[in-house]
Amino acid sequence: MSITPFDSALFGPLLSDAELAELLDDRAQLRAMLAFEAALARAEGSVGVIPEAAAGRIAAVADRLEVDPAALAEGTAEDGIPVPALVAALRQAVAKENEGGDAASFVHWGATTQDVMDTGLVLRLRQVLNILETRLDALGDALAALAEAERATAMLARTRGQQATPTSFGLKVAGWLAPLQRHLDRLAEVEARLGVLSFGGAAGNLSALGENGLAVEAALAEALDLPAPAMPWHSQRDGLIEFGNWLGLVAGSLGKLAGDVLLLCQNEVGELREGGGGGGSSTLPQKANPVRAEAVVSLTRFATGLVGQLQAAAFHQHERDGVAWQIEWLVLPQMIVATGAALGHALALIESLEVDRARMRANIEATRGLALAEAASFALSAHLPRPQAQALVKEACKEVLSNGGHLIDLLAERTDVAVDWTALRDPAGQLGAAEAFIERVLVARRRAAPQPPR
Amino acid sequence: MSITPFDSALFGPLLSDAELAELLDDRAQLRAMLAFEAALARAEGSVGVIPEAAAGRIAAVADRLEVDPAALAEGTAEDGIPVPALVAALRQAVAKENEGGDAASFVHWGATTQDVMDTGLVLRLRQVLNILETRLDALGDALAALAEAERATAMLARTRGQQATPTSFGLKVAGWLAPLQRHLDRLAEVEARLGVLSFGGAAGNLSALGENGLAVEAALAEALDLPAPAMPWHSQRDGLIEFGNWLGLVAGSLGKLAGDVLLLCQNEVGELREGGGGGGSSTLPQKANPVRAEAVVSLTRFATGLVGQLQAAAFHQHERDGVAWQIEWLVLPQMIVATGAALGHALALIESLEVDRARMRANIEATRGLALAEAASFALSAHLPRPQAQALVKEACKEVLSNGGHLIDLLAERTDVAVDWTALRDPAGQLGAAEAFIERVLVARRRAAPQPPR
Amino acid sequence: MSITPFDSALFGPLLSDAELAELLDDRAQLRAMLAFEAALARAEGSVGVIPEAAAGRIAAVADRLEVDPAALAEGTAEDGIPVPALVAALRQAVAKENEGGDAASFVHWGATTQDVMDTGLVLRLRQVLNILETRLDALGDALAALAEAERATAMLARTRGQQATPTSFGLKVAGWLAPLQRHLDRLAEVEARLGVLSFGGAAGNLSALGENGLAVEAALAEALDLPAPAMPWHSQRDGLIEFGNWLGLVAGSLGKLAGDVLLLCQNEVGELREGGGGGGSSTLPQKANPVRAEAVVSLTRFATGLVGQLQAAAFHQHERDGVAWQIEWLVLPQMIVATGAALGHALALIESLEVDRARMRANIEATRGLALAEAASFALSAHLPRPQAQALVKEACKEVLSNGGHLIDLLAERTDVAVDWTALRDPAGQLGAAEAFIERVLVARRRAAPQPPR
Amino acid sequence: MSITPFDSALFGPLLSDAELAELLDDRAQLRAMLAFEAALARAEGSVGVIPEAAAGRIAAVADRLEVDPAALAEGTAEDGIPVPALVAALRQAVAKENEGGDAASFVHWGATTQDVMDTGLVLRLRQVLNILETRLDALGDALAALAEAERATAMLARTRGQQATPTSFGLKVAGWLAPLQRHLDRLAEVEARLGVLSFGGAAGNLSALGENGLAVEAALAEALDLPAPAMPWHSQRDGLIEFGNWLGLVAGSLGKLAGDVLLLCQNEVGELREGGGGGGSSTLPQKANPVRAEAVVSLTRFATGLVGQLQAAAFHQHERDGVAWQIEWLVLPQMIVATGAALGHALALIESLEVDRARMRANIEATRGLALAEAASFALSAHLPRPQAQALVKEACKEVLSNGGHLIDLLAERTDVAVDWTALRDPAGQLGAAEAFIERVLVARRRAAPQPPR
Repeated sequence: MSITPFDSALFGPLLSDAELAELLDDRAQLRAMLAFEAALARAEGSVGVIPEAAAGRIAAVADRLEVDPAALAEGTAEDGIPVPALVAALRQAVAKENEGGDAASFVHWGATTQDVMDTGLVLRLRQVLNILETRLDALGDALAALAEAERATAMLARTRGQQATPTSFGLKVAGWLAPLQRHLDRLAEVEARLGVLSFGGAAGNLSALGENGLAVEAALAEALDLPAPAMPWHSQRDGLIEFGNWLGLVAGSLGKLAGDVLLLCQNEVGELREGGGGGGSSTLPQKANPVRAEAVVSLTRFATGLVGQLQAAAFHQHERDGVAWQIEWLVLPQMIVATGAALGHALALIESLEVDRARMRANIEATRGLALAEAASFALSAHLPRPQAQALVKEACKEVLSNGGHLIDLLAERTDVAVDWTALRDPAGQLGAAEAFIERVLVARRRAAPQPPR
Repeated sequence: MSITPFDSALFGPLLSDAELAELLDDRAQLRAMLAFEAALARAEGSVGVIPEAAAGRIAAVADRLEVDPAALAEGTAEDGIPVPALVAALRQAVAKENEGGDAASFVHWGATTQDVMDTGLVLRLRQVLNILETRLDALGDALAALAEAERATAMLARTRGQQATPTSFGLKVAGWLAPLQRHLDRLAEVEARLGVLSFGGAAGNLSALGENGLAVEAALAEALDLPAPAMPWHSQRDGLIEFGNWLGLVAGSLGKLAGDVLLLCQNEVGELREGGGGGGSSTLPQKANPVRAEAVVSLTRFATGLVGQLQAAAFHQHERDGVAWQIEWLVLPQMIVATGAALGHALALIESLEVDRARMRANIEATRGLALAEAASFALSAHLPRPQAQALVKEACKEVLSNGGHLIDLLAERTDVAVDWTALRDPAGQLGAAEAFIERVLVARRRAAPQPPR
Repeated sequence: MSITPFDSALFGPLLSDAELAELLDDRAQLRAMLAFEAALARAEGSVGVIPEAAAGRIAAVADRLEVDPAALAEGTAEDGIPVPALVAALRQAVAKENEGGDAASFVHWGATTQDVMDTGLVLRLRQVLNILETRLDALGDALAALAEAERATAMLARTRGQQATPTSFGLKVAGWLAPLQRHLDRLAEVEARLGVLSFGGAAGNLSALGENGLAVEAALAEALDLPAPAMPWHSQRDGLIEFGNWLGLVAGSLGKLAGDVLLLCQNEVGELREGGGGGGSSTLPQKANPVRAEAVVSLTRFATGLVGQLQAAAFHQHERDGVAWQIEWLVLPQMIVATGAALGHALALIESLEVDRARMRANIEATRGLALAEAASFALSAHLPRPQAQALVKEACKEVLSNGGHLIDLLAERTDVAVDWTALRDPAGQLGAAEAFIERVLVARRRAAPQPPR
Repeated sequence: MSITPFDSALFGPLLSDAELAELLDDRAQLRAMLAFEAALARAEGSVGVIPEAAAGRIAAVADRLEVDPAALAEGTAEDGIPVPALVAALRQAVAKENEGGDAASFVHWGATTQDVMDTGLVLRLRQVLNILETRLDALGDALAALAEAERATAMLARTRGQQATPTSFGLKVAGWLAPLQRHLDRLAEVEARLGVLSFGGAAGNLSALGENGLAVEAALAEALDLPAPAMPWHSQRDGLIEFGNWLGLVAGSLGKLAGDVLLLCQNEVGELREGGGGGGSSTLPQKANPVRAEAVVSLTRFATGLVGQLQAAAFHQHERDGVAWQIEWLVLPQMIVATGAALGHALALIESLEVDRARMRANIEATRGLALAEAASFALSAHLPRPQAQALVKEACKEVLSNGGHLIDLLAERTDVAVDWTALRDPAGQLGAAEAFIERVLVARRRAAPQPPR
C-alpha cells in the first residue's frame, strides 16, 4: 500500500526518507520490541525474578527472532495492540527451542504492552535523534560556509513584501543558521527527558513484580542504557510531545529558509537559483522549477501542522488511553520522516545553491537610490534638523517614484551640506553591523560544532 | 516502507482500509492518470487537434500500459511531479508500438501536469464517494434498526459528565443516526462541485490548443463523464477542501458515537459491551478492551485534525503552487482512509453491540430517584406553587445524597398532594417526546434510503 | 480587557469588525437569550402549558430587560454556564413587576441551558449570515467588474513560483471570483441545516413538558421562525461545524486572492499596488506596505487554522458536554469576525486596486520570448515533427538564457517554416480560452446576483 | 467588545484571567513600547548617538506618557502596525514639553517597529513567566501534599477505559505532578532563549546607527536587562514558538489532570467530587457539575489547539513578514490567558478536591476480585507452572463474570497451593512500587521547590 507519499515507491525520493524509514517501519518496530523482551528477561534473570536459564533462553530467541509483521496483523486488530500477538509468537518460538521446559512461560513477565512499545520506540528515537543531529550539523556547516563566503555581498532586505534597505546575503544566511544552533542546544535538553525507560507493568506500579519491581527496573535501565524516570510515564506523554515540538521548530526554521529561497528564485527577483537546473515541466520548455525548496516548504508546513495534532497525546485518560496513544502512532512517525526529509533536501539545496551577486547588486541599483532613503535621511540629519532632513528625503523619494532619476543625485542637487554622496551611493557601505552579527553567529557555530576526532 | 499505520502490514487491519487503499495507492494513481491521457488523446483526435490514428494508438497504449511506480521515482524527485516521467514512459511505449510513426509526439498534447493529476484524482474520488456512501447507508440502516429496537429502553441521560434524567437508548441511537442522514444530503452537494474535469493547460487558459481549447474540453468532459467547471480550478481548491471538510463531518459524527460507546462500556457504567469479547491485554486476564470503539475515536480524532491541515491548500499562489498542492497529496488520502476505516469499524461495532438493558435500568434505580428530580418537581408544580415545589425537591435531593433513602418515597411522605408517585417512579413513563423524535429520525432515514431494485 | 485584536481598541479597525462584533458581544448574547425566553413563554402560554397571563408578563419583561453582563459573571463562573444566573435575573424582574403573583415561577419552564444558548446563537447567526452574504455579493460585483475591465489585459501566468506563459489579468480575477459564487451556493445549503431551533429540555427529550412537548416545540418554532429539526441537536453539532467549515472556505478564497495581490505588489513585480498609498513604515520613507492584503492573509490564515479547532466540537459526550461546548464559545465567534473583517478588507482592496497594465506587459517583454516558448513549440509543430519542434525551442530557450537575445528572433532565424512570428510575439494573441472562461464565470455571477427590487 | 470569552465581562471569571490580562491588554502593550523608546533614548544618549539632553527629555516623557489606545487605532489600521502612530504621539508630547527644541526629532532614532513591539512583548512575557511559574509552584505544592496524603489510598487503575488492577490514588496524583516538575525545568531553558532584546533597525543590521550600532545595542541590553542574541531575531521566531509550545505542554498536563478528575467525578464512579458543591443546572435540582475541571479541559484543549496555529509564525518571509507576525498577535496572548486561567482553576480544583476513599475501596470490592486477577496469577505462578496458573485464573474470571462469586474464593476453592489468599484479597497489599514512585516524585519536587527566604 502507499496511502501517504512517505510509503510510496513513486513519491518516496521526493517526499520521504529511506534512512529514517528503516527505523520506523514494521520490522524495526518489532525488532525493538523484541530487544525490550530480551533485556527484560535478562534483567529479571539477573535479579532472580525468573530462572536465569529461562532468561537466557528467552533473550537468545528474542535477539534473533524474525517475525513477519503480517502474521501479527489479525491479532493486532483483535487486541488493538500488537504486543499480545508478538508475545505469543515469542513464547511459541521459545517453547519450540525449549521443548519440555518452562522457559516460554517467563516471557514478558510482569510487563505490559506499553512498556514494550514505548521503550521500543525510545530505543529507535535515540537513533533518529543521532541522524537528525548529524544532518543539522551538516546543514549548519554548509550555512556557515555560505554565510562566510557571502558576508560582504550586498543585497536588498525586504520587509512586509517590499524592498527596504541594503543588507548582506551573508546576514540572511546567518539568520537561517542561528536558530539551527539553538535547535542543537534544545536537542540535548529534549533528549535528556525523552531518552528514558518505560517500565511500569499493567497499572504503572510494577505490582506484578512485588518487592522486586525496583530492582528489575534498575537492571533493565542499565541493560538498555536508558535511565529510569521518577515514575513510569505511561500516561504522561510530555517527553514525546516535546520531541514533536522540537521537530516542529526544526521544520519551521527549514521552512523559513526554503521560503526565502523560493521568493529569491522568482524570475523577477532572480537572485538565487537551485543547482542542477531545477525541475522540468510537462509542457513548458523554459521552466526550471525550484523543486527542492518547494519540497522543503511542503514537508515542513505539513510537519508543523502535525505539531498541533500531537498535542492531543497529552490528554491521556487514567493509567492508559488507547485513543490518545494510537494518535501518537498515527502522527509521530510522519513528523519524523517529513522533518528528516526536509533536512536532507535543505542540505542539498544549500550545497548547490547558485547565488547571483550581480543580480543582487542590480536589484539594488534598480531602486534608483530608494533603498538608500533611510541612510540618506540619517546622513543629512548630521547636518540638518532631523525633521527637515526627513521631509527632504520623503519629497525626493516621491519625485523619483513619479519622475524617475536617482534619489542621491536629487538630494545632492538640492542640498549643499557636506555629505559624502559617493560613499553613500555604495550599498556595501550601508550594511551596518551585518558583518559583526555574522561573526557572532559563526563563533557560536564554531563553539558548538563537534570537534574532529584527534 | 510503513511509516504510517495506513501502509503497515502490522497495523493495517486495525487502522487502515484495504478497499479504499486500492484506489489511493501508486498504481491506482498511475492508472487514473493514464486514463486521462487516453481520454485526452481520443478527445483531441475527435476534434481534429491531433491525427485520429495517433489518438487511437495513444489511447490504446495508455489503456493497457502498466508502469512500475519505482521506475518513475527518480524523475518524480527531479521534477517535483510524476507527470513528466509518466508522459515520457507513455511516449516511449507508444513509439515502440508505432515504430517510425509520429503518434508518440501527440501524447499529452496541450495539457499540463495538474490536468492529469487532478482529473486522475477526481476519477478515483468518484469511486471513493461511492464506497463511503454505501458504508454510510449500511451504518444508517444498522442504527435505524437499533433505534427501532431500543426505542422504549429507558436509560440515564448524562449531561456534563453527570447523570441527568431518564431518556431512551433508542433516542441516543437516533442521535447518532440523525447527522448521518445530513451527511448523505451533503454528499450530493459536495459531489456536484467536486466531480468536475480539471483541464486548463500550462496557465489555465488552454492557450496551447488555440481556438480548439473549448472543443477539446467538451469532448474530454464527455469522454470522462465529468462536467467542465466555469473555468479551470488549478489554483482554486475549494471543491477538494469541501470534500475534506465533509470527511471531517462524517468522522466527527462517528467519533461522537464511538466516544459514547466507550463511556458506556466503562465497567462502572456497564450498559454496553463490544461484541466478540473485546480485545485482550498482554498481562490482564479479565480485560475486554473496547477495541473497535477505541480505533474509531483515534481514527476520527486524527481525520478531523487533518481537516485543519487541508485548509492550507486554499492558499494556492498564482496559477499553480507546488507547495499548496503537495500538502494535498500529504493530507487528503490519509483523511479518506482514516474516515473510511472508522466507518467500517463503526458498522461492525453497531452490528455486534451488546446492550445491557437490565444494567441501564439498574443504573437508573441506583440514583434512588434523583434522576427523577426534575419530573417530580414538575409533577408537584401542578399542585403547588412552583418555587415551593422546587424547594421541596431540592431539599429532598440533599437528604437522599446525605442520608440515603429514595427521593420519591421522601416526597410522598412529605406532601399530601395527589401525585401518582407509582407512575412517576417508572422511568419508562418519563421519556417525553423520545419516541416521537426517534420516529421523526427514522422517517427521514426511510425517505432517504436507496430503494431496493425491483 | 483586550486579549485579542478582535476586542482591542488599538487593533480593532485593522483586525476586527465592528458590525459583526455587535452581534457577538455579551449584550447581544444576553438579548438573544432573553428573546428565547420570551418566545418560550408565549409558546407555552398559547399551548396552555403555563398560564397565558404569566406568559404575557414574562415575555413583556424579557423583551425589554437590560442585564449587565458583569452582574452575571459570578454566577456564570459558579455554574460554568450563564443561564441559571440569567434566569434568576429574569425571574426577579418578573417577580418585581408581578408582586404577589406567580408569573416568575413559570420562567424557563421545561427548557434547559442549551436550548437558550444554542437558539440564541442561531438567531444571531442568521443575522451574521445576512451580513456575510451581502459582503460576498458586493465583493463578487467588484470582482466581476474588474474581470470585465481586465479581460484582455495580458500578464504573465506564474506556476510553481516561476513565470510560465501569458494569461490575462481578467482571468486571474475571474479565478478569484469563481469560488465566491460557489460559496454563495453553499451558503444556502449550510443555512438550511444551521437555521433550526434548539429545544430539547434537560435530556433532549422534552420530558418536563410531558405530552405537550411537541406542541410547545411547534409553537416556539413558529414564533422564532426557526424550523424544528428531526430531533434536538444538543449533542450533534454538525450544523455549527459545517458553518465553521464554510467560513473557512470563504476565508481560504480570500487568502488566495490577497496572497496573489501581495506577490504582485512586490517591487520587483510591480503589477499591482494597493490604493491609498499603502501603509507607512516607522523608519523608511519610501515604503508603501500592502496593509490590506497583509491583513486579509493574516486573518484568513488564522480563521482557517481555527477550522481545525472547531472539529473538536463534534466529539460531544452523551447528552451534553460542557467541554466540547465551551470550545465552540472560544472558537466560533473569532472565526466569524476574522472572516468578516477579511471580507471587508478584501472589498476595499479590490475597489481601490491600482493595476499597472504597462508593467504587466513589460514583465512579459522582459522574458525575451521565453514566456512564449510553449506557444512557439506548438506553432512549429504545425510544420515540423513535434519532437523536432520541441528540441528546437528548448535549444533556443537555453541560448536566450545564456547569451541574451529574443526567443522569437532566434527561432525565426533558425527555421524557414511559415509561422507568423509577428503575431506570435504578441502575448495578447496567446490567451487561449481566457475570455471564454471569464465570460462563463461572469454569466454564473450574473445569474446568481440578487435582482434589484422592482 | 467581547468577541472572545477572554475579553468578556460575562465569561471572564470562568474562562479568562484578570492578572494576566493586565499584562496583555492595549495599555500594557503601549506602556511596554514606551519603555523601549525611553530606554533607547537613554542608551543612545549615553553612547552619544543623540544629544544627552534630548535623550533625557524623551525618556522622561516616554516614562509617564499615557496614550489612549483608541487614539492610535486609525493610524494602526493605515500602517498595519501601531508604532508609527505611537512614535508620532510621543514626538508630539516631547515637542510640547521642549518647545523650540529639537528633542522630538531624536525619538525612535535608528529603530524599527519590530524592535519596539517585540522587545515590548518580551518585557511583558518576563512578567508572564513569573506569574505562571508561581502558579506552577503552587500547584506543585498542592499536588505534592495530596500525593503524600493519599499515598496509601488504594483505588482502581483503569486502562483503555476498563478497570485494571489496584493502584494508589497517591500515585495517580504523583503522575499529575511529575510533568509539572519537568515543565519548571523547561521553563528555565525556554526563558533563556526567549528573554532577549529585539534590536535590529529597518533591515536587521542596525545600519542607520552606522558604527555605533553595537554600542547602542549593548547599552540598551543593559538598560532593559535583556541580553542581546547573536543577531536580531526579527524573522527568526523560534524563541516565541518554543514558549508557545511550552504553554501547550503545561496546558496538556493540566488537561490530563482535569480529564481524570471529570472521569472520577462521574456518578457511577464517584471517587472524586469538586469542592464547593459543583455548578448548578438551570433545570435539574440534583446536579453538581464539575465546573472547574470542565473549564480546565476546555481551556487546555483550546490552548493546545493554538500550538498548531502558532507554528505558522516560523514561516516568516525575508527580513520582516507582516502576515506571519500578525498571526502571533492573534494567537499568543490567547494561549497565555487560556493556560494561565487553566492553572488557576486547576489549583482551586486540587485545593478543594473531595476524595471519597470509601468509594475507591468499594469500587475495587465491586470487581469481585477481578482487579486482582493479575496478582492471583503471579501468586499462583510461584507454585504452579505459569501457563497452568494463567489458565486457572482466566477460567475463574469467566466464571465470576457469568455466575457471580468472588475470584479469590473461587481460586482458593480450586487449588490447594499455599497462597496467602487473605493477604492477596487486600488491594492495599497489591500496590507494588507505588509508594517508592511517589517518594521519588516528591523528592524531585522538594529538590526543585524554591527555598523559603531565610
